[in-house]
Amino acid sequence: MSHISDPHFAERVRDSFARQNAMTLIQASMPVIEHGRTEIHLPHWSGVEQQHGFVHGGVVGMIADSAAGYAAMTMVSPTASVLTVEYKMNLMAPADGDHLVARGKVVRPGRTLIVTQAEVFAIKEGRETLCALMQQTIMVMHGKSEKSQGEKT
Amino acid sequence: MSHISDPHFAERVRDSFARQNAMTLIQASMPVIEHGRTEIHLPHWSGVEQQHGFVHGGVVGMIADSAAGYAAMTMVSPTASVLTVEYKMNLMAPADGDHLVARGKVVRPGRTLIVTQAEVFAIKEGRETLCALMQQTIMVMHGKSEKSQGEKT
Amino acid sequence: MSHISDPHFAERVRDSFARQNAMTLIQASMPVIEHGRTEIHLPHWSGVEQQHGFVHGGVVGMIADSAAGYAAMTMVSPTASVLTVEYKMNLMAPADGDHLVARGKVVRPGRTLIVTQAEVFAIKEGRETLCALMQQTIMVMHGKSEKSQGEKT
Amino acid sequence: MSHISDPHFAERVRDSFARQNAMTLIQASMPVIEHGRTEIHLPHWSGVEQQHGFVHGGVVGMIADSAAGYAAMTMVSPTASVLTVEYKMNLMAPADGDHLVARGKVVRPGRTLIVTQAEVFAIKEGRETLCALMQQTIMVMHGKSEKSQGEKT
Repeated sequence: MSHISDPHFAERVRDSFARQNAMTLIQASMPVIEHGRTEIHLPHWSGVEQQHGFVHGGVVGMIADSAAGYAAMTMVSPTASVLTVEYKMNLMAPADGDHLVARGKVVRPGRTLIVTQAEVFAIKEGRETLCALMQQTIMVMHGKSEKSQGEKT
Repeated sequence: MSHISDPHFAERVRDSFARQNAMTLIQASMPVIEHGRTEIHLPHWSGVEQQHGFVHGGVVGMIADSAAGYAAMTMVSPTASVLTVEYKMNLMAPADGDHLVARGKVVRPGRTLIVTQAEVFAIKEGRETLCALMQQTIMVMHGKSEKSQGEKT
Repeated sequence: MSHISDPHFAERVRDSFARQNAMTLIQASMPVIEHGRTEIHLPHWSGVEQQHGFVHGGVVGMIADSAAGYAAMTMVSPTASVLTVEYKMNLMAPADGDHLVARGKVVRPGRTLIVTQAEVFAIKEGRETLCALMQQTIMVMHGKSEKSQGEKT
Repeated sequence: MSHISDPHFAERVRDSFARQNAMTLIQASMPVIEHGRTEIHLPHWSGVEQQHGFVHGGVVGMIADSAAGYAAMTMVSPTASVLTVEYKMNLMAPADGDHLVARGKVVRPGRTLIVTQAEVFAIKEGRETLCALMQQTIMVMHGKSEKSQGEKT
C-alpha cells in the first residue's frame, strides 16, 4: 500500500465526523478510528425507527456508508479528501437491538479509488446479529483537503 | 403484471410512511403516491447536512431507498408487506439544493421479488440536478400485512 | 456534457471490441454504436448455455458490462481509455430467447467517472423480455488511449 | 443456520456445474466444493482475453457469480435449487495471471435468500493478487430441484 501514513489521521477523521450534522441528528458516535478501519455506534431511540419499531434501513445505510468512508479517509494524505462514489448494501435481518455498531474497513486502497466494506450489527443483551453488509467505492480527491474546501454559506 | 390492484394502495402507503419516525426526523414528506411510483421530498435544513453544508449522502440514500420501496408497496396486495433486500446507489453530484426530490419507480414487479429504481434530484432555484441513482431489490411478504405484524414494544 | 466529441468514436469502439477475444468466443457482435449508447447482440447457441438450456447469467453479465462500458467510451477523448470500476446487475427473468440484445447507455458523463446503465432483452419470436438490468461505474483514464497501452506479450 | 445438510451436496453441485456449457466454453473447473464455499479455477488462455491480453472482466464476473452461487447451493436441501437474484462486483486490478481462482462463500444463509461473497485472485508465478470482489443475493427455490426442472428442448 503506497498510501502516505498521516500520524494525525484519527484527529482529522474525528473533526470531519463532528462537523456532520446528520450524524448528530441520529445520535451516532465514532468511538473507534484506526488505520483502515472505524466503528460508528448508534443507540436505538424512537427518532430513528421505522414502522415496526426497528431502526430504519436508511439509518443503517447511513452509518454503514459513513463508517466505511471514514475507514478510507484514515488512509489518505492530509492534503486529500474522500467522496463516496457508490455503495451496495444487503439488509439481512431487522435492526433489532439496544444499539447498532457499524464496522467499516478498507479492502483495497488504490491511489484514486478505495474499495471498502462495512458490516452493521444489532446488539441485544450483549448478543451481536449481523443485519447489513455493504461494499463501497470511495474516490480520493488529491490536493483537496476538507478544510481547503471551505464551508458553504 | 399480475399484481392485484388494491384501490386503497395510496392510503396504505401513506399510513406506513407516517409511522416511520426516521422520515419525520429528517423532515421528509411523500406528496406523490401513484401505482408503481412515489416521490419523497426533503427540505434542505441544517440537521441533514454533512461537513460541507450539502445534504448528507446517507440521507440521500434514505429517501431513495424509501421512495423506491414504497413504489413497490403500491403494487402488492393489501395482505402483503414489502422489505428491502438490497440496493446499490451511485452518488453523482453533491446534493446542493433548496430541497431534494427522490423519485422511485417499479421496473419489474415479480410475485416474490420486485426490482425498482430511484433518482434523487437537487432543486436549486427551480433547476433540477440528478445527484443519485439507485437500483433496488424488494421482497414481497405474502400474508403479512404491515398491520398484522404488530408494533414492537 | 463537457466531453469532447470525437468524430471517430464509432471506429475506435469497433476496433477495441474486435480485439476482445472473449466477445468472439461467445459470438457476440456490436451492430449499434452511437454517441452515448451501444448494442451488443448474442445468438443463443449451445456453448453459452447454463444447465437448463438458457443463456448463462454470467454471459448475460458479460454483454451488459461491455455494452455499457463501450457506451461510455463513445463519449471520451481519443487520447483516453475506459475501465470498469464496478457494476451491479439484477437478473430478472431467464435469458430464454433466440438471441439476446444488451443495450448500454450513459446516464452521467463525468470527467473522471461515468455512470451507465444496461438492459438485456431476450428476443423470442420477435417478442422482447427484459431479463437483466445493470448499473455501472466507469473510470476514464486520460492520456492513456487504448493503442498507447500496447499489447501484453 | 437452519439449513438441512445434504450429505451429497458436493455431488449435486458437481453435476450441475458439469451441465453448464458456458463453464466448459471458458475452460473453468471447480476443484473445491465444501459446505458453504467453492472455488472455480480458470486457466489464462487466449479465448478469454480482452483487448490488452488480460482476462476479460466479464469472464471474471462469470466465475465469481458461479463460485458464490454454488457456495449457496451447497447449503440447500436436495429438493431445492438456487437462482442468482443480483450481484455487485468491483474490479480492482487487471486479471493478469497464469490462472485465476474465484472463491465463493456464504455470508448469511436465509431460508429464501442467501447472501454470498466472492473474491477473484490472479495467480502469477505463485503470487496471488486480489482482482475482484463481489457481493451477491441468491434465491432458494424450494421444491424445485435442478433435475425436476427438466432440460429445455
